[in-house]
Amino acid sequence: MVKLKGFQKLTLTSQAQQVWFNTLQIGKPQAIAAGLKDALQRVLVEDIVAPEDLPRFDKSAMDGYAVKSADLLGASQSKPVILQVTQANRVDSKQARQVWTGNPIPEGADSVVMLENTQKSGGELKVWSQLTPWTNVSRRGEDVKKGDLVIQAGTRLNPYHLGLAAALGFTQLKVAQKPKIAILATGNEIAELGTQRASSQIYDSNKTMVAAMCHEIGAETVDLGIAKDDTEEIVAKIQAALKGSDAIITTGGTSVGGLDLVPDAVNKLGKPGVIVHGVALRPAMPTAVAVLEGKPVLILSGNPVAAVIGFEVFGRPLISRMLGMNGEEPRQIVEAVLTRRVTSVLGRKTYVRVSVFLKDGELSAEPISAKGSGSISTMTQSNGYLIVPENREGVNEGETVLIHMFGSLEVARIV
Amino acid sequence: MVKLKGFQKLTLTSQAQQVWFNTLQIGKPQAIAAGLKDALQRVLVEDIVAPEDLPRFDKSAMDGYAVKSADLLGASQSKPVILQVTQANRVDSKQARQVWTGNPIPEGADSVVMLENTQKSGGELKVWSQLTPWTNVSRRGEDVKKGDLVIQAGTRLNPYHLGLAAALGFTQLKVAQKPKIAILATGNEIAELGTQRASSQIYDSNKTMVAAMCHEIGAETVDLGIAKDDTEEIVAKIQAALKGSDAIITTGGTSVGGLDLVPDAVNKLGKPGVIVHGVALRPAMPTAVAVLEGKPVLILSGNPVAAVIGFEVFGRPLISRMLGMNGEEPRQIVEAVLTRRVTSVLGRKTYVRVSVFLKDGELSAEPISAKGSGSISTMTQSNGYLIVPENREGVNEGETVLIHMFGSLEVARIV
Repeated sequence: MVKLKGFQKLTLTSQAQQVWFNTLQIGKPQAIAAGLKDALQRVLVEDIVAPEDLPRFDKSAMDGYAVKSADLLGASQSKPVILQVTQANRVDSKQARQVWTGNPIPEGADSVVMLENTQKSGGELKVWSQLTPWTNVSRRGEDVKKGDLVIQAGTRLNPYHLGLAAALGFTQLKVAQKPKIAILATGNEIAELGTQRASSQIYDSNKTMVAAMCHEIGAETVDLGIAKDDTEEIVAKIQAALKGSDAIITTGGTSVGGLDLVPDAVNKLGKPGVIVHGVALRPAMPTAVAVLEGKPVLILSGNPVAAVIGFEVFGRPLISRMLGMNGEEPRQIVEAVLTRRVTSVLGRKTYVRVSVFLKDGELSAEPISAKGSGSISTMTQSNGYLIVPENREGVNEGETVLIHMFGSLEVARIV
Repeated sequence: MVKLKGFQKLTLTSQAQQVWFNTLQIGKPQAIAAGLKDALQRVLVEDIVAPEDLPRFDKSAMDGYAVKSADLLGASQSKPVILQVTQANRVDSKQARQVWTGNPIPEGADSVVMLENTQKSGGELKVWSQLTPWTNVSRRGEDVKKGDLVIQAGTRLNPYHLGLAAALGFTQLKVAQKPKIAILATGNEIAELGTQRASSQIYDSNKTMVAAMCHEIGAETVDLGIAKDDTEEIVAKIQAALKGSDAIITTGGTSVGGLDLVPDAVNKLGKPGVIVHGVALRPAMPTAVAVLEGKPVLILSGNPVAAVIGFEVFGRPLISRMLGMNGEEPRQIVEAVLTRRVTSVLGRKTYVRVSVFLKDGELSAEPISAKGSGSISTMTQSNGYLIVPENREGVNEGETVLIHMFGSLEVARIV
């Protein structure tokens, strides 16, 4: 029996990631200044340290009167205390100064009595509740102290980070420049979307999908079009792309049994070229990772689902690192009960697409029957991955498993 | 005791939502055509029905030779079957036609033998493996059948939806126009970010945060600036905003014990005005919901955390509905074990900020000690909410609870 080719040895995903990232030595990302409105979902490049206390003065947490709490000792509904209302910015003994929520507490006062517990007539204020010191007062620095590290470099900024930055007076933040990812599809059998296709061709969906996965986590993309199954054409397109982009992702032209046009083309372009080709990953075994001119090249399968999983395992952590995040940005992980046994092969990490739903307060994960790695509808019917590790041969029905979510819980199935 | 004001009665959040949405009668959103690249995270307005089968022809799932499986009966390593290689687009008995992954299966063939299991010499092909019919063939329509409803109206489009749409030949999709939300902050105590503030003022952070929360779920925003605590000014700003926007969100000027400048202003502007003021929700009790000229007005507390929770409970479902989603877009829900008891008040729905982390394969939720609803750093230190329902008085340490996640699992704490 002549083995034409095929992978002699599959590399574990963790090893493939490690050797790729070690070779790449990804540095700190280029920082750009973004206004707060444009900083949403961007990745912070420099630690944010509080330039002042928050609140920056003792302030009223209520609408009411600032008073000295000692003056109210013994106040009750039947025996209210009478205070003199002052307009001054300090409160002396037996005085009260009206304050609204957010106002600084006048000097001399140590608490705020709520409007409801008072009655004003003329210059006099009746108060019928006692207060402990600092009641209804937000103390200076109680939220954040000047010099506190409030947001770490590498954080993806959500609305609350931006709110905190605004409260501290920042109008701009230094965020990572978006890495520019060039995307090339290969294959005689695929036609550019929106063009006439031959009867033997299908529309390319991989470029659309890979670009969207890049955009979703904060990268820009450049569309390199489609290369025919021709090494010279692939070489030319990758060579041109190396100049203007930070990384290249290709789809197709890498397989187990047949042509390896893209790995071959990459190896013609320089050293080290392809570092790993063939990973112990299902689907996505033909994935290859490479380095050219110090830039990452990710070679994905042409099968849409294998391309998605290859991107999940190598593309996401790559872009996270290029953005300066501390390691990979985790998917949301939920615990759920598996509704049906899934099979997997010992020695291969397997990504099983599942649909997670909530029923009677319990989360269940239903495996989506795989119709092959080309079946993109299995991705739209699922919302998470069960990752079966290399040392497991399947997972049993009823087992509680961790699911890595990429979509919302199914609304219709939150029952 | 004279009660100056205060809420006579708090409305349950579910009732407040119901009466607000019933009054609003939100219609189908305006549809716009978006190229696939621009459709990511947008909400689909019309069902997508497959215009053709996917795959649209029987196609090879491997690089190899298309054959009649019956011809290979009895083939083995010691006794290979010899086939004639043809270049024709049909395979007759004892013939084989080379195919690459993705190629249509030639007429007459019913399976593909992998390149590795063959040896070609001259016009002859040795094959040493038997095949069942349709081995290594992706059957026409096995992924999607023509006429299948593949993506439902109301779906937020992820990269896989876009990939499926591309595979089906769509270059554009009809998505919901972004609702335009006008945002007004009120209060003498707040200053516009980037300006000089008085010593008694703090920077506004609510507009930044509310805008970001709107952008995050797909709305546009218009900045109405800051209104002083003056009914006439608030009336004028809201009146002007009603013309050019689809909804208005305000912060501040609504309180339990003091001034209700914004609800009062809204009520001056027409009917029905304020529908609910004061909800059984902690924090965010002073939240009010209103309708003016058929448009929603959401009146949030000036306390940043109360504003966030008020938006979470009323703003998110509002915008989801304006986008044409089926009900509220759910947060990711995870089950976690509570690390410390939390308290809550019977009859109030309570949003407890928690930090969820993964340890030894188990998710734990640690309550972030609340320093008051003004403490925005409690939002940046947490990644989810424990929602304690009205009929519970606290939740015990060690209880397994559902957490509504708004941030990633803490990377550093995935241990």
